[in-house]
Amino acid sequence: MNPKEWRTYLVTQGSRSAGRDTEAIVEAALDGGVDAVQLREKGVSDAERYELGRRLRELTADAGVPLLVNDRVDIAGAVDADGVHLGQSDLPVAVARERLGEEAVVGRSTSTVGEARAAAEAGADYVGVGAVYGTGTKDVPDAKDGIGTDRIREIAEAVDLPVIGIGGIDADNAGAVAAAGATGVAVVSAITAADDPRAATAALREVVDDAR
Amino acid sequence: MNPKEWRTYLVTQGSRSAGRDTEAIVEAALDGGVDAVQLREKGVSDAERYELGRRLRELTADAGVPLLVNDRVDIAGAVDADGVHLGQSDLPVAVARERLGEEAVVGRSTSTVGEARAAAEAGADYVGVGAVYGTGTKDVPDAKDGIGTDRIREIAEAVDLPVIGIGGIDADNAGAVAAAGATGVAVVSAITAADDPRAATAALREVVDDAR
Repeated sequence: MNPKEWRTYLVTQGSRSAGRDTEAIVEAALDGGVDAVQLREKGVSDAERYELGRRLRELTADAGVPLLVNDRVDIAGAVDADGVHLGQSDLPVAVARERLGEEAVVGRSTSTVGEARAAAEAGADYVGVGAVYGTGTKDVPDAKDGIGTDRIREIAEAVDLPVIGIGGIDADNAGAVAAAGATGVAVVSAITAADDPRAATAALREVVDDAR
Repeated sequence: MNPKEWRTYLVTQGSRSAGRDTEAIVEAALDGGVDAVQLREKGVSDAERYELGRRLRELTADAGVPLLVNDRVDIAGAVDADGVHLGQSDLPVAVARERLGEEAVVGRSTSTVGEARAAAEAGADYVGVGAVYGTGTKDVPDAKDGIGTDRIREIAEAVDLPVIGIGGIDADNAGAVAAAGATGVAVVSAITAADDPRAATAALREVVDDAR
């Protein structure tokens, strides 16, 4: 459960899963050795998100892999997730922890050293840092051009928290992200849109392992 | 705190408040005798919604008036609101109650007898029924034409729950809604966009009182 051990972190998005359902993608990623799963489905109702979260909770629990929920502390609590991932304009870290309990894993999206320091001071358990590379995925800061691996290095040196790189990462560039100081990488399309999500997860994991 | 006693129920929306801030509208409505306040701000971040919720909690607590939060069980819990109002595609009533505690007031939006019966079976404390009349407000079912007061009567007869009419209601038509069996009326613009929100609240209250 220690985010420092997370090398590969799958962020779900049904609309980027090449017509396959999110459960199937998550099952394949679990088979491929993914270290953490975040439920982040844009464009579905809360009722649907809750039902999907319950199913992902079963799958991840069977695999002994932590499940986090993007943004929504209530849904994280309702599906008994291990934690929540908060954007810069979401609820405060302390509020999430108070609602979910001391054991909950609370992550915060950051793209600058200042934001990462603030997250550390607020008690976050890890920081998501990105977008490292330009990406088509919405809702990641600086998603157009990317902040680059130098920023990963600066943040990894500035804060004593696990750093999860996110944004435009795949097996080709994940090594550079890990070499710059990221403890792990979070991906959407590199797994969800892969022909073989299981193999893509395993490949990503190996690249990060080698570079760490 | 009994929703059966609510005659006037303000639903906030900063963007429909004629340039005034939501706190000022809520203060005026409290002065005018509003019976319940629901925080429903579309188009703001969760961080902003949380901060606004905290301020409204102070104002409503000082006035001894219940505060509910639209959709979001986590924000309701975080600001110590009295309850939550759930749409048809939001979290289940039972989940909200489990997260917020047995004492929480949980309302559900309904527009048919079937939905109202389902809400009653799920343990809702009241039903919001609408849109009664056509309205420009988003996120209310059938907002274009309105379901009419006959539907209010059908639902009030079908379920043993307080019925709060919503959608296009003002002092001119609130009496008809109450006469059809609504225990109270929820409004946005009739208060938020009024020249004098305090007087508008008081007038609405009197109309509903007389018709009940």
